[in-house]
Amino acid sequence: MIHGDRMMVVMTPQASQAEIAAVVERLEAVGVHAKVMPGELTTAIGAIGDPEGVRALALEGMPGVDQVIPISRPYKLASSELSHHEPTSFSVDGRVVGGNATFCLIAGPCTVESREQTLAVADAMQAGGASMMRGGAFKPRTSPFSFQGLGPPALDILAEARERTGLPVVSELTDINWAEPVAEVVDVIQVGARNMQNYALLEVVGKLGKPVLLKRGLSSTVEELLMAADYILKEGNDRVILCERGIRTFETATRFTLDLGAVPYLKLHTHLPVIVDPSHAAGDRKLVEPLSRAAAAIGADGIIVEVAEDPEAALCDGPQQLYARDFAEFAERVAAHAALCGRTLA
Amino acid sequence: MIHGDRMMVVMTPQASQAEIAAVVERLEAVGVHAKVMPGELTTAIGAIGDPEGVRALALEGMPGVDQVIPISRPYKLASSELSHHEPTSFSVDGRVVGGNATFCLIAGPCTVESREQTLAVADAMQAGGASMMRGGAFKPRTSPFSFQGLGPPALDILAEARERTGLPVVSELTDINWAEPVAEVVDVIQVGARNMQNYALLEVVGKLGKPVLLKRGLSSTVEELLMAADYILKEGNDRVILCERGIRTFETATRFTLDLGAVPYLKLHTHLPVIVDPSHAAGDRKLVEPLSRAAAAIGADGIIVEVAEDPEAALCDGPQQLYARDFAEFAERVAAHAALCGRTLA
Amino acid sequence: MIHGDRMMVVMTPQASQAEIAAVVERLEAVGVHAKVMPGELTTAIGAIGDPEGVRALALEGMPGVDQVIPISRPYKLASSELSHHEPTSFSVDGRVVGGNATFCLIAGPCTVESREQTLAVADAMQAGGASMMRGGAFKPRTSPFSFQGLGPPALDILAEARERTGLPVVSELTDINWAEPVAEVVDVIQVGARNMQNYALLEVVGKLGKPVLLKRGLSSTVEELLMAADYILKEGNDRVILCERGIRTFETATRFTLDLGAVPYLKLHTHLPVIVDPSHAAGDRKLVEPLSRAAAAIGADGIIVEVAEDPEAALCDGPQQLYARDFAEFAERVAAHAALCGRTLA
Amino acid sequence: MIHGDRMMVVMTPQASQAEIAAVVERLEAVGVHAKVMPGELTTAIGAIGDPEGVRALALEGMPGVDQVIPISRPYKLASSELSHHEPTSFSVDGRVVGGNATFCLIAGPCTVESREQTLAVADAMQAGGASMMRGGAFKPRTSPFSFQGLGPPALDILAEARERTGLPVVSELTDINWAEPVAEVVDVIQVGARNMQNYALLEVVGKLGKPVLLKRGLSSTVEELLMAADYILKEGNDRVILCERGIRTFETATRFTLDLGAVPYLKLHTHLPVIVDPSHAAGDRKLVEPLSRAAAAIGADGIIVEVAEDPEAALCDGPQQLYARDFAEFAERVAAHAALCGRTLA
Repeated sequence: MIHGDRMMVVMTPQASQAEIAAVVERLEAVGVHAKVMPGELTTAIGAIGDPEGVRALALEGMPGVDQVIPISRPYKLASSELSHHEPTSFSVDGRVVGGNATFCLIAGPCTVESREQTLAVADAMQAGGASMMRGGAFKPRTSPFSFQGLGPPALDILAEARERTGLPVVSELTDINWAEPVAEVVDVIQVGARNMQNYALLEVVGKLGKPVLLKRGLSSTVEELLMAADYILKEGNDRVILCERGIRTFETATRFTLDLGAVPYLKLHTHLPVIVDPSHAAGDRKLVEPLSRAAAAIGADGIIVEVAEDPEAALCDGPQQLYARDFAEFAERVAAHAALCGRTLA
Repeated sequence: MIHGDRMMVVMTPQASQAEIAAVVERLEAVGVHAKVMPGELTTAIGAIGDPEGVRALALEGMPGVDQVIPISRPYKLASSELSHHEPTSFSVDGRVVGGNATFCLIAGPCTVESREQTLAVADAMQAGGASMMRGGAFKPRTSPFSFQGLGPPALDILAEARERTGLPVVSELTDINWAEPVAEVVDVIQVGARNMQNYALLEVVGKLGKPVLLKRGLSSTVEELLMAADYILKEGNDRVILCERGIRTFETATRFTLDLGAVPYLKLHTHLPVIVDPSHAAGDRKLVEPLSRAAAAIGADGIIVEVAEDPEAALCDGPQQLYARDFAEFAERVAAHAALCGRTLA
Repeated sequence: MIHGDRMMVVMTPQASQAEIAAVVERLEAVGVHAKVMPGELTTAIGAIGDPEGVRALALEGMPGVDQVIPISRPYKLASSELSHHEPTSFSVDGRVVGGNATFCLIAGPCTVESREQTLAVADAMQAGGASMMRGGAFKPRTSPFSFQGLGPPALDILAEARERTGLPVVSELTDINWAEPVAEVVDVIQVGARNMQNYALLEVVGKLGKPVLLKRGLSSTVEELLMAADYILKEGNDRVILCERGIRTFETATRFTLDLGAVPYLKLHTHLPVIVDPSHAAGDRKLVEPLSRAAAAIGADGIIVEVAEDPEAALCDGPQQLYARDFAEFAERVAAHAALCGRTLA
Repeated sequence: MIHGDRMMVVMTPQASQAEIAAVVERLEAVGVHAKVMPGELTTAIGAIGDPEGVRALALEGMPGVDQVIPISRPYKLASSELSHHEPTSFSVDGRVVGGNATFCLIAGPCTVESREQTLAVADAMQAGGASMMRGGAFKPRTSPFSFQGLGPPALDILAEARERTGLPVVSELTDINWAEPVAEVVDVIQVGARNMQNYALLEVVGKLGKPVLLKRGLSSTVEELLMAADYILKEGNDRVILCERGIRTFETATRFTLDLGAVPYLKLHTHLPVIVDPSHAAGDRKLVEPLSRAAAAIGADGIIVEVAEDPEAALCDGPQQLYARDFAEFAERVAAHAALCGRTLA
């Protein structure tokens, strides 16, 4: 659990001078600079240097050591302090994501279920002013006996929807075996919450040359989200959009607890754009608009919401999908809050 | 864990007819109506009737019983379905709380530390358009070695601040021994998160004849919050304000996770006003304004925030307090989001 | 969130020399010793001194400060490092609690419901080799419409049970107004999980001159449990028994998640005895014996379990109560695991 | 969130007869049997039938519907109620896993770092009576800048260790591209916690013809663990070992909270063997033995622990690894608790 290039080794009150010296010696042996800080009760030793070297020392196990406290933050490339300070922004077929002047409204059905359903929703998205269209071709499902998506045929439908409406398409990649066909069609590749720490997938996605929408794992800290982004960024792909989608807590009134406070926290600590998915956390469409307005008001760079022509007939997550016929008014009300924060729809 | 007046008893696949009959017999013995529903694999038995009677049966322990699933919600008086359907609203010295047309902006120092500090902040609150003023006289602290508040002298200072500014005063009651002096001075009595399930305190507070601001416990579900409100409501006091203040989760980037989704959920299920405390969840003033804007946009009936003249010198929770000199602009920006939701400052 | 007498102030990479100097100056102004540790990317400043003084500085709010990291642990009197190193042990009417040679088996009904029920269980407890008897007179209940215990008449019944069996009695105090009658009858005063941070109650309990069984709050960290113990210890009462009883997590298969890992952690960091309550976490009697065996094997100083003559008829928590007729065999199996750890039944 | 073949639709108190009839009609239209249960306040409708059909109805979104409550459990093949009732047991090169008569002690280094280190530990494992040997070839790491394992060369070293000691080898598969070389060498294929819901990986693993050790995700419920097992079982592979390894909670004193209560819960509800990994939850070797003893006492089918010759020099997770020189005594003490539960070392 030692991260970064700086840490503090705290000795127990009973630690002997020899034990303190042994820690210092081990640190200096790998070229790490050590500063001893005697206190009233305990001695602490500050260590500054190569993180890999220090981690390998396993100091927590040495006699007399009470705690090893990491001080530097463990993410590097995603950090606004360590990497570039200006917010990252980029264009997806003309829609600017990031940069604090736009609000990116991504909407569409949970899953592509048929050509008719998808094109109908696509038309409503376009009419309502959406920035991009979402739609799942492959769906990771908790039970193997649930509907898993149409697969490749869904990609063709998404391509047709894009051609018809001009809306860029966001869709999830769940299996590296499908990386190429997905990358061929999709404008933004989504990595789902359950795959946030599927490092094999992150590395593949980092190499596909497409923007990536990386969802926070449902029990991942924001630090771990930023380290997962580092996996993509280190492949040379700096077009990464982070997405808060709700975390798992003891509360079951809502399906997940949307951690909106993570948005301003992330905006302080990373240069990457940050959007919010209110649909999966809510699990109930009556909560989706309030959460979307809140996401706009809190300073998010956008939202991604589920919309359907006929949610009652949807094969997946129907209860949380907005009605397509209500989408334009929904978009207007959310955009009004974004406008108060100086943002226009992307 | 059986709640309410309706439940479903699910038998195991191996349950015998005799075991099913025994459950039915026990239900009917206490006057509860039972409906047997045979299924392909298991039989379920619906039970409708007096909840105390059914709970006492301890059906989960009977042979052949797999699960007892409560169906009705367990709160009664706080429910918008079971109690009155119209939102509750009331006036605190002219400031209307609840009713969906006002936004109540409660602000002030974490703790009353001195007469000068408190009056200076009170003036800034009044100038900035606050609805009420907050300030702690008694502070529950995790460690017994931390500053615990001035106690009774703080009440005199709060009374002076109210006289000077006309702002109603919100302050916490932590110990039933102080109930009377606190109720004499304070306009809204706060029950803190750590006392949300201190039932002796809730019953005392229910009898004091003053509006109550009830904070959600840091690991309490919204159902438990509503049941705690029932403790106050059943004493005949229906002027209860619920307050979301952040729950404890695995995430440590923010001090608590502000569960803003609880606000629209509560607005659907209770007639009581719902406000948000963004300061304690954030633990960092840079997050307080975004969270406050989000609270306004999501449809809360108000917020309660900490403000200080000189947060760096505060004895308690300095880092999360807003600067008093920034308060008027803060209030204006938050009010703009409330206005989009059809609300004016109370 | 600054605790203890030692902390590390980490500056942002952009912090200027003037900002660093300002932090040092503020620390030294209150007599705290500051050590500047420049690093490759950021500077850290170690601070050693009076915790109240440092906390009051609110350094997190100063320009250029990124984080303030507490290093010392925040509990004092309960600490085996800062207070006395030998485990605390004491006798409750001949039963030794603490000290690593005994295992304290506390058992009895959830709630005293009648004289007959209580005496019958008491007899079974005595016959089965229990160390003490538990039984609730006052029950804190989530809903105000649930059975709240018999109150004072239950105390008389408990007194009779003790006289009859010789077993010391453990019972919960929920309201400081009942402190004296409870202390008159009860041998060990229990503070329930919901009251772990009811500081008014903790201080009263600290002064009653009786051993205290302090249950961990359902969302309290072990550090907070130890700080709550400090509230009792500072009143001069050092006979405090800590009790792990399950914490609230996302998992709902069991009612709470019993944090058995907290037991060896606590045994390393506090001199106080640590016992386990498996009944409330399980919520199902089929899990109670496995959890009890695990508590014995992990090195706990005892357990507290619920037992009833006729759990199906219990007014409270019936499904988790063991059958009194099975108690002696249960006790024997648990004691066998305790014996492997060098402990005999108290 | 509808699971299984049985559910209860609860209407709001305001639901009209027409709304109730509409729900019944929709259920019956897909061949699901509906039972209307009018209550004092609300009406409930029991639905029994094909789960896919009912899920597709998205009843939660219909007018007048308050809640849809699943009643049947959502896992099928892993269920001891729905699938076979007898515990599954199988032999891994002579070591019997499952069946309640053996205790499987899997031990070894976190990661294969060198031939010498691995063979030395393997010798100690064999001498100490281990049932199998563990060792990582590919390590999923939170940060892309951490040591990721030796990869393929580690597989050769593991093969040599097995030949030398006769101990079957357990190792993790993290990437489906490595499935074949891993399956060629490894006796039990581990799916790590971060991949528990990597369904593409689960399906591949189900087809490899080797026993699988499936770790619970760090924020997965036990129901989700059993549904993940269903992904493997449905490929025709019924040799699946479940592993509790700690969940993420608010508590940070230990790295994760080991949910030992999940073990007896799982033993009641699944026929699959259940083991415990105490090392990753503890994060500190001083806690590993107490947790291991507790796992044995609670009735687990085994444990998997990390052991190293020189943990201070380990590149990964050193502080939680046991010393190889202490292994034999550790094994003896743990086995004593297993013996009390009627189990001998596998």
